[in-house]
Amino acid sequence: MTMKFSKRMERMQASEIRELLKLTQKPEIISFAGGLPAPELFPVEELAKLAEDVLKSEGRQLLQYATTEGRPSLRKKIADRMLAKYNTKVNPDEILITTGSQQCLDFAGKLFLDPGDVVLCESPSYLGALNAFNAYEPNFVEVPTDDGGLIPEELDKILSTTERCKFIYVIPDFQNPTGRTWSMERRTKFMEVVNKHNLPVLEDNPYGELRFEGEILPSLKSMDTKGLVMFLGTFSKIFCPGLRLGWVAAEPDVVSEFVKIKQSADLHTSNFDQGLADAYIDNYDLDAHVEQIKALYKHRRDVIVESMEKMMPEGVQWTHPEGGLFLWLTFPQGVSAAQVFMKCIEKNVAGVTGDAFFPNGKTDRNMRINYSNMPDEKIVEGIRRMSEAIKESM
Amino acid sequence: MTMKFSKRMERMQASEIRELLKLTQKPEIISFAGGLPAPELFPVEELAKLAEDVLKSEGRQLLQYATTEGRPSLRKKIADRMLAKYNTKVNPDEILITTGSQQCLDFAGKLFLDPGDVVLCESPSYLGALNAFNAYEPNFVEVPTDDGGLIPEELDKILSTTERCKFIYVIPDFQNPTGRTWSMERRTKFMEVVNKHNLPVLEDNPYGELRFEGEILPSLKSMDTKGLVMFLGTFSKIFCPGLRLGWVAAEPDVVSEFVKIKQSADLHTSNFDQGLADAYIDNYDLDAHVEQIKALYKHRRDVIVESMEKMMPEGVQWTHPEGGLFLWLTFPQGVSAAQVFMKCIEKNVAGVTGDAFFPNGKTDRNMRINYSNMPDEKIVEGIRRMSEAIKESM
Repeated sequence: MTMKFSKRMERMQASEIRELLKLTQKPEIISFAGGLPAPELFPVEELAKLAEDVLKSEGRQLLQYATTEGRPSLRKKIADRMLAKYNTKVNPDEILITTGSQQCLDFAGKLFLDPGDVVLCESPSYLGALNAFNAYEPNFVEVPTDDGGLIPEELDKILSTTERCKFIYVIPDFQNPTGRTWSMERRTKFMEVVNKHNLPVLEDNPYGELRFEGEILPSLKSMDTKGLVMFLGTFSKIFCPGLRLGWVAAEPDVVSEFVKIKQSADLHTSNFDQGLADAYIDNYDLDAHVEQIKALYKHRRDVIVESMEKMMPEGVQWTHPEGGLFLWLTFPQGVSAAQVFMKCIEKNVAGVTGDAFFPNGKTDRNMRINYSNMPDEKIVEGIRRMSEAIKESM
Repeated sequence: MTMKFSKRMERMQASEIRELLKLTQKPEIISFAGGLPAPELFPVEELAKLAEDVLKSEGRQLLQYATTEGRPSLRKKIADRMLAKYNTKVNPDEILITTGSQQCLDFAGKLFLDPGDVVLCESPSYLGALNAFNAYEPNFVEVPTDDGGLIPEELDKILSTTERCKFIYVIPDFQNPTGRTWSMERRTKFMEVVNKHNLPVLEDNPYGELRFEGEILPSLKSMDTKGLVMFLGTFSKIFCPGLRLGWVAAEPDVVSEFVKIKQSADLHTSNFDQGLADAYIDNYDLDAHVEQIKALYKHRRDVIVESMEKMMPEGVQWTHPEGGLFLWLTFPQGVSAAQVFMKCIEKNVAGVTGDAFFPNGKTDRNMRINYSNMPDEKIVEGIRRMSEAIKESM
């Protein structure tokens, strides 16, 4: 029996990353393809103790249905943290807790997009966001970027000539896939452009706190004077992803629409998991925990960049992320990332080919490399193998 | 700054139940309006112990990202349970674990519905499902029901004359809002009709195990010979709702579409919560736990029905559910449920007016009554107050 599905399903393929990941999951493969946090830093012992405590003290409430908006005391903590870390003032009422920040991407698509509407994004951009928006049948317009991030003048040109632009999706800090961060100047200019065009902004910030060098830059939301910016945050990278805790912070009349969508989508996020994160922040030092993560990832970034400098063949370029989990390889003209990928698999090493991150004009010269999830010796050996694969593809 | 939202948002209002619930949340009100399980039966102590155990034994895995499909050992247990309880054979690979079964409703809308497509449902039907489908801009066609549930002959007539029917949504066991259960004969006839028309079926079964009398009837899925039925299950009513654990079981090529949707929607359901449910079933007796729930809800149903028989004025009718959490009041011609509701609020008692459960033709003669969440003396006093309110509205 073949069922007749909706038109959108023709566009929704299983995430290419996940399909490729299947190739990369043989145990002998050293994989830079994923995006997993380092599990050795998960606060397992602390959570084991807290889980017992919170269930004993408020178990009947934590295991019951709860409000769609999320646990009030956790929303308060998120508001406090956004102020402390990103100089971003939001009221706890302006925060909706979601089942990971991935859920906010789906909700944003649902909230804004009719078929044929335009979503703007950095070129390249996060594949998981593109897939989420895709379900609502938009057209994508890619905004050119350089090492400093999105180029505001290009955005201005596009907005002056493009109809039905509903929102722009951006990751200004340690972007996925490139690892790039927008400068302060770019942020200011970007806000001028979106203000001029009244363009809603989806600011995705999963990695912002994981800055190894320099100071955290203000969020776009903190610079927003017209209520245009929706800020997406997550506990996945500063705490642990398995609990699926994210949030969106936006103007009250926008958050209330997100709440309606959430109500129909899954009623509310796991109340127990919310209580657990809340109790962790009450009882332990999340800032100190984040410092540990930063120290480890900085070290791994240093190891990987050093290995690349030593071993990568002439002509291969890579970004130098000041934080986050990813860097971005660019191969010389004429070298195909798809070919490199297959050579890599032969040599038991893997990254993700860059083409999936460009919603329209595919390029075949990039690879995304994750460095957060692997001990030093594996990083060095993996880069050795990958360098060989690239050499053989040149 | 006013943003331009998608067309669907014009149709998505905050659930009327939740709006009304705000009126019913004053502490002095005895509320039959919700649908909460009895929290005194949640296995709090057991979960407190297990949470510690599972984190200590596999915490780094439970707190990490996981596969979209769900925890394999839990999917296996769900398959076993569907066979044991509903005589329904499914392979664990044919199960996707979701963030509550509410999420399956949203996904089904996404999978099947283009704007203007037709969703069929029982008249009345579960409001939360109607709201979830609404986001995908369908037209609803209500299929007439009687005390025995949906009337298959009426469905056949509708299908013979209605275009763009994408699926039918039904709750054959202890339906929300009516508490009614379809007879075996109805199930057989229903399957004949959907087979004749090749109509996909969304079978929602949140309450089926909570049968106080007689035997659990076979699921529609167990009678499905053409791969038309998608079965939605949940741990919310037999375990606890705060963890948000549900599932869909369907043909492999349908489940794989649900998996794609899930991947973009929230990546996966809380891995820790899945591990906890899995460990509970391994270490405790879920069947014995369900027996406790059934005994308590049966008692409460007896108390409420007895109270109604004693106190309700002539002409008021109610269903006699053989399981589940709800019953359904029908007032005599000329008595407005909206008026009764306001009188009830004056007297500090509440139900949910029935109109919200009819997607098209509103009626104003019904009220949904929940009896799972309240001690005896409150039930008796609540029905006393409600009977007064009805008398005064007649």
